[in-house]
This record gives sequence, C-alpha cells and structure tokens, in this order.
Amino acid sequence: MASAELLLVSRDMSDETQAPPASSTAEDPVLASFRKSIDNIDAALIHILAERFRITQAVGEYKAKVTLPPADPDREARQIARLRKLSEEADLDPEFSEKFLRFIIEEVIRHHEKAREG
Amino acid sequence: MASAELLLVSRDMSDETQAPPASSTAEDPVLASFRKSIDNIDAALIHILAERFRITQAVGEYKAKVTLPPADPDREARQIARLRKLSEEADLDPEFSEKFLRFIIEEVIRHHEKAREG
Repeated sequence: MASAELLLVSRDMSDETQAPPASSTAEDPVLASFRKSIDNIDAALIHILAERFRITQAVGEYKAKVTLPPADPDREARQIARLRKLSEEADLDPEFSEKFLRFIIEEVIRHHEKAREG
Repeated sequence: MASAELLLVSRDMSDETQAPPASSTAEDPVLASFRKSIDNIDAALIHILAERFRITQAVGEYKAKVTLPPADPDREARQIARLRKLSEEADLDPEFSEKFLRFIIEEVIRHHEKAREG
C-alpha cells in the first residue's frame, strides 16, 4: 500500500511540474519505489521456497524409505486444481499458476530421483 | 515446526509397532502431514505472486506511459545476483533461484509487451 500511495503522489507532482521523463530507469523515483516492493517480495518468495524444498526433501527421503514412487500424478492434479481456484480468487492468471506449480514439481521430482539414486 | 514434530512422533510410533508401509500415498499419515504443510506454503506463494504481478502490472503501465523499455537487463542481472546470495543463506540451490526468477521475469515481460501493444 505504501508504494502505491507514493506512486500516486509522485505522479501528481510530475504532472504539476511537467518534469521530463527520466532518461534511464536508474534515475526514476517512481520505478525505484516499485522495485523496492518487488525486491521485498522476492526475498519473501526465496525464503518460502527454501522452506518448501526443506519439506519436499524430507518427503523424498520418506518416500525412498517406505518405497513410495517419487511422482504422484493424482496428487499433482489435485494441487493444480486447487491452486488454479486460489489464483482466480487472487486475480492471478490460473494458466500461470499451473505453469508455476509444474515448474516447482519438476524440480522436486528431480530432487527425489537424486535421493533415490543416492 | 508442528509438522516436523508430528513426523518424528509418527516415525517413532511406526518403528515401535512395526506398522507396514501404506500401500498408497493416500493412506500414509506422515505423507499427509507433509502435504498439509506444502499446501499451506503453496497458498502463501500464490498470494505473494498475485501481489508481485499487481506491482509489475503497474510498472508495465508506468513504463508504457513514460516510454521506458519493458526489459531492463542491468536490473535483471542485479536481481539475479541478489537472489542467488539470499538463496545461499537460506540453503536453497542458487541455480534453482536463478531459473525461478527468469521464469517469473519472462512472464512479466510478456505482460509488459501486451500492455504496450494494447
């Protein structure tokens, strides 16, 4: 919210003073404010993903121990359906959220196969 | 933390009682506990990604307005370097975090190009 408010203030100011557009992205304060928010969000994403891989690593070890297969297509189908629904509620493109989950699951299965081989 | 503790308890119990491994993933309580954590994390990821795309959509509109190019290779290089460093600190594979950010950025640029065309 803070960055959106800052943006509105900055836009109003630049309309009043007729400031020329910044010649490069590095000099633009509006863009810099957006980027600060994106950087905060990306740090959160990295830490949440780190925790997700900690859990899926434990799942991989457990599956190898009790000889369950690394991939589970039924579970994946349920996860994708659920995330598509959550995405719609959050105004995120459901196609993107499906691609995103498949991207993560591919990485997880690669880890599980490694754990099985090791 | 709760699910990790549950896991330890479940493992101890199954060692004591020599319970046979579940015949399918659907019946395994240890796996079910892990999956509950993964589902919670995925819901968090979807909502954080939805917010990230809200911001990058505003960035796209702003860039189109002040005629800045959709892609910014210098910014991307700085983002990747920063996330690789954060990943190392969080014990996440830096290669994965780089692939992840490129995956997100590709989607963002596709959105920006659409906004430019529209």
